[in-house]
Amino acid sequence: MFDTETDVACAEVGAADVLAAQARLRPYLAATPLHYAERFGCWLKLENLQRTGSYKVRGAMNALLAARERGDTRPVIAASAGNHAQGLAWAGHRLCLPVITVMPRTAPQTKVAGVAHWGAAVRLHGDSYDEAKAFAVELAAQHDYRLLSAFDDPDVIAGQGTVGLELGELAPDVVLVPIGGGGLASGVALALKTQGVRIVGAQVEGVDAMARALRGDHSLRDAEATLADGVKVKEPGRLTRRILGGLLDDVVIVREAELRETLVRLALEEHVIAEGAGALALAAGRRVAGKRKCAVISGGNIDAVVLAQLLADVRPRAPRRPRRRF
Amino acid sequence: MFDTETDVACAEVGAADVLAAQARLRPYLAATPLHYAERFGCWLKLENLQRTGSYKVRGAMNALLAARERGDTRPVIAASAGNHAQGLAWAGHRLCLPVITVMPRTAPQTKVAGVAHWGAAVRLHGDSYDEAKAFAVELAAQHDYRLLSAFDDPDVIAGQGTVGLELGELAPDVVLVPIGGGGLASGVALALKTQGVRIVGAQVEGVDAMARALRGDHSLRDAEATLADGVKVKEPGRLTRRILGGLLDDVVIVREAELRETLVRLALEEHVIAEGAGALALAAGRRVAGKRKCAVISGGNIDAVVLAQLLADVRPRAPRRPRRRF
Repeated sequence: MFDTETDVACAEVGAADVLAAQARLRPYLAATPLHYAERFGCWLKLENLQRTGSYKVRGAMNALLAARERGDTRPVIAASAGNHAQGLAWAGHRLCLPVITVMPRTAPQTKVAGVAHWGAAVRLHGDSYDEAKAFAVELAAQHDYRLLSAFDDPDVIAGQGTVGLELGELAPDVVLVPIGGGGLASGVALALKTQGVRIVGAQVEGVDAMARALRGDHSLRDAEATLADGVKVKEPGRLTRRILGGLLDDVVIVREAELRETLVRLALEEHVIAEGAGALALAAGRRVAGKRKCAVISGGNIDAVVLAQLLADVRPRAPRRPRRRF
Repeated sequence: MFDTETDVACAEVGAADVLAAQARLRPYLAATPLHYAERFGCWLKLENLQRTGSYKVRGAMNALLAARERGDTRPVIAASAGNHAQGLAWAGHRLCLPVITVMPRTAPQTKVAGVAHWGAAVRLHGDSYDEAKAFAVELAAQHDYRLLSAFDDPDVIAGQGTVGLELGELAPDVVLVPIGGGGLASGVALALKTQGVRIVGAQVEGVDAMARALRGDHSLRDAEATLADGVKVKEPGRLTRRILGGLLDDVVIVREAELRETLVRLALEEHVIAEGAGALALAAGRRVAGKRKCAVISGGNIDAVVLAQLLADVRPRAPRRPRRRF
């Protein structure tokens, strides 16, 4: 649906790389469950039950393993809204590799604690992902660290794409994914687009840099405050933009209030804890038709006080009654 | 470990009935996920992701299907702390059979709303499961309804036992189950005991009627207030007591504070919402040795205000750091 900047068959990363990533990750990460949310009429891919509570560990682990295969054993540094850092810390712990992470000071406590738990170095810097990233670039240059992007890296994208491969059995007609930098959406699109699956991205109003970029608007605007801290990215990836320009079918923009209600309904009706960005794809699902829809619940790392407040404040409407059958 | 009142090979229900239940339920209920909780060192059987948010739907559905096979189409009435009623309402909706439920006035709102959602009749009576049960017995006699026990029924026990069959692939050495009336524990024990799996029950302090009955103390005491409303049963089943007397390896009594902490840690670290009784088996797991432990997270139906309060009040200790590998 969008104009493509270059050829779709992007030379840097393709479906073969996603398959290679799946083989690499198999000894470390089990497939996450698929759950049918009856009252939403939508399948959920539960990446909140993934190691470290988010899909990000897939890309991080794949990047470290691929680097090791290439003989690159430099310490890795990454800027992250929190989940990429946690994934990298877990991967570093499993592979005995040193990892340095830079997170914005606004990152949820649970994400910062998760990184420290797995023994990675933590630097808090700036008030947004983009400020943390600028600082990580500086540190990488100073110390000759390898800088690993949270989304704009072929190995990371290939790793995230394994989420898509795990949906094969379900044979969905539409897959909904949250978009921040675009790594997950790119990987999933590479994995599933040739199988005739529609790939629909979800963004929050005011934090829609990728949606604008795909329409040709490359201006940089400060992202607005949102519950979905994990997708709060000012400048989407160059590589992900190119891939999604060719493969993404649509982007749905979700209102903040819809996101909050979806997160609370997920907790109360499906007993699934999602973080803000994690509930985004399902929130978008309401506006997307499909016979067999699947939304990726991308992560579940939300602070206790934030979740408690949402549960106390948000009163979702009662779900529609099922049709009587007799 | 316990004295048996009668022969273990209980004539009323056995492993063959559990297998028959599995075949009966297959068209209606998919297997629930198994999730490894890394920081607890324990596998979780996620019955909070079961239809209606609890394993109870298995026994209820099996009982309705088995009755239909026998040509018994009387309306069914049941007393329930909430989840048996929800399971029965769902099963009644699927099979187009009328269902009447009696719940104590203290039942969580989410459970009462769930029963109404599936179109079953709701009567609120008394302040405990046992009072609701007495009223259900009365109504059944008046109207010639079929009274279906929440746990002390061969079809119900066989249905709950399918939880155990779904653990086969995992090959656990210990399975932990919460005990109220004893239906789940009995079913799981029938399914797994011959495979050399240890079955350990979990009860809360002050709500331990089954543990006392198995020691030969059959006195009836009022159950104390507990977060685990789903297992608050004053008088355990006659049939379940006989089965568990022969097959249960141990009962662990959990303190209320441990239960609360486990429930909150489950939410924050594993992104799993359990109700009080749902977190009970995992809380007991701390005191049980095993190479491959599995705790049944029996349900997730907890009221929003209760969960919000717990998340605001309980500050779990930080998890133990993983061993550094380099």
